[in-house]
Order: sequence, then C-alpha cells, then structure tokens
Amino acid sequence: MALGATGLIALAGLDPAAAGPVPVQDNPNVFGLREGYTPMVSNLVSMMDWMRGVVLGSVRGLSTSELDFLLDKEANSIGAMLMHLAATERFYQLNSMDGRRWGNWPSEDRRRFSVASGLGDNARAKIKGNPLSYYMDTLKEVREETLVRLKNLDDDWLLRTDPNFAWGPTNNYCKWFHVVEHESNHNGQIKLIKSRIS
Amino acid sequence: MALGATGLIALAGLDPAAAGPVPVQDNPNVFGLREGYTPMVSNLVSMMDWMRGVVLGSVRGLSTSELDFLLDKEANSIGAMLMHLAATERFYQLNSMDGRRWGNWPSEDRRRFSVASGLGDNARAKIKGNPLSYYMDTLKEVREETLVRLKNLDDDWLLRTDPNFAWGPTNNYCKWFHVVEHESNHNGQIKLIKSRIS
Repeated sequence: MALGATGLIALAGLDPAAAGPVPVQDNPNVFGLREGYTPMVSNLVSMMDWMRGVVLGSVRGLSTSELDFLLDKEANSIGAMLMHLAATERFYQLNSMDGRRWGNWPSEDRRRFSVASGLGDNARAKIKGNPLSYYMDTLKEVREETLVRLKNLDDDWLLRTDPNFAWGPTNNYCKWFHVVEHESNHNGQIKLIKSRIS
Repeated sequence: MALGATGLIALAGLDPAAAGPVPVQDNPNVFGLREGYTPMVSNLVSMMDWMRGVVLGSVRGLSTSELDFLLDKEANSIGAMLMHLAATERFYQLNSMDGRRWGNWPSEDRRRFSVASGLGDNARAKIKGNPLSYYMDTLKEVREETLVRLKNLDDDWLLRTDPNFAWGPTNNYCKWFHVVEHESNHNGQIKLIKSRIS
C-alpha cells in the first residue's frame, strides 16, 4: 500500500541518494517526513502535532469556571494542567536546546512558568480566572518556539545523550517523547475531571 | 556529545553504506536502534519499552482491593484500565498486522478482550477480584507478541497508510504511537485514582 500522495514535493538536502521526490505528509494521521525537518525530527514533530490536536479537542469550548473546577482539594484544575504542559515544554527547550541544567532557568521563565510546573497548592492559588484563550495562547507561543528551534536541529541532536540528566543518561529523543506523552498523561486526567464538572 | 557506547554491535542488512558498526542501545532512556528491529521500528520499540516501564512503576505493589477501587460510580478501576491497555494493543495487532477491519476480531479475542476494551459498566461488573499478576501476565503476553511481530515488519510497514481507518487515512506509525500514548493517558488516570484510594 503506497503512502498517501499528499504534499509530494522535492526536499533538498535530506538524502542525496534518494532517486526522486520525498513524500512529505500533511495529514496529521500519517506520521513521517514533515517539511523543513530532518527524518527523525519529522517523526517527533508528527507526534507533537497529533498529540496536541487530541488535547485541544478535550478542552475546546471550556469556560473559565470549568477550567478552574477542582475535583477535590488535592486536584489540579484543567487550566493549571494546560499551563503545566506549556511550562514543561519551555523547560525542556531550555534544558535540551540551550544546554541549561534542569532548574537553572532564566528569571523571566522562572517567574512565568515555575508555579505551573510545580502544580499543587501554589498553582491552585495562583492559576485561575483565566479564559481558555490565555492557556491556548501560551501553549501556542511555546510550541511555535519549539518548532522553529527543531528546524535548526537534526537527527544527530535528537539522538544525543545527556549524561547528567536526573533520570541517568537520557537522549533528546527520550526527553521530547516524554514531553509528548506527558500531554497524554494530563489529557487522561483532563478528560476524567471534565466528565465530573458539576 | 557521542551516543553512549552500550551494545556496540554490527547490524547486518540495515544500511549497506554505513561505514562501521551501528550503535544499538539498551538504556531505555536512550531512544534509537534496538537489536533486531529496523531503524524507525526501533524508535517505536524504544517508546513502547519506556512507556511501559512508567506504567509498571505506577502500579507496582498494588493489592487486589486497590486494583478494584472505584473513585466514584462512573470510574474505571485501575485493574480494568490495565486490562484495557492489553486489549487495545491486541486489537491494534489484529488491525495493523493482520489487516483485520476494526471490530472484526477472532471470537477468542472478542471473548477475552471486548469487555476491557469497552470499559464502563460491563468492565466494572466483570473485571475485578484479580491480583496484579493477572494484569501483568496479560500485558506481558500481548507485548511479547507485538515485539515478535515487529521483528518481522519494517519501516515500510510502519509508514504504510490504511485508507479505511475510522479516523480517516492513518498510517501504522500513527496507530502505534496512539497505542503508546494511550498508556500514558490511562497512566495519568491511574495515578490520580491511586492517590485517592481510601
């Protein structure tokens, strides 16, 4: 069965031995080459795009009070979890793309994202009252930065191992897969909480 | 920064142009080539292994009553969710590896996995009273079958698009990424529910 023929264009510079145009996919359900990214980075971008679409589908149309709803006194709100996803992605940019030690963030990023990163009491107190657009805009801004940065990185970078990561030696593919599956982890919680909003 | 040197062996038949041995990784946090799999299938196997390790970490040591705990009358138990993960993986094997239309399952698989696949009332009534080992054994059995099958499949298969999937045209990489992120989705719920067991 052939790949769908969406977006058949010639990609220069990827594989000089390729005998013809490389199929670039623009169907989110067809993972593979994405325009402007190296092959393995394309697979990561495929996952990021697809997963983000799923999360956005879960929160579409939620009101401020729904975004602030707390399942119980230990729960995180959906709004706080959305901000937490943006914070996580920003911190992985700083760690894996700028080579910063985990936690050694510029003060601007610390001010903007540390509460969301930590969730819990502090996030319950401080992250509320915002419309959905606030979270969407933040997620979009951080994602756009990730995608611009990934265009200037390649498969060698993706496979590069950080010997000093908290989990032990970990490569960038693993770190960024975690950023993606972490959205699914919280999406599972978002769906559970959303179905209990009273 | 070089890749970790774990498991440096020559892999025959992957890339005749490669000038030396291909590094095969056995650190779960270093995604990349896995012995016996083609390059992109190796990336998928990397994700599957890593994600499964996270889920197993969440449920380690849970008792039967903890596995049966219901957060409220609409909730799925942790045990039912673990069986649901095995069911999902089995159905994606049948769909993507055997070419079966979704839902057109052999009667043995339907009997074994349909309740878990559907979750809800039926799963609350029927999936309970089992020790953790029951779920672990089922997950392991299904995963071993996936891994054996993937050794005989390749990157062309992974990129192949099913034009008739329920989501619209979808390739096997997307389907199997979903199988993996779906574990994370339920792991988020498992962690939330586990922290509320009274």
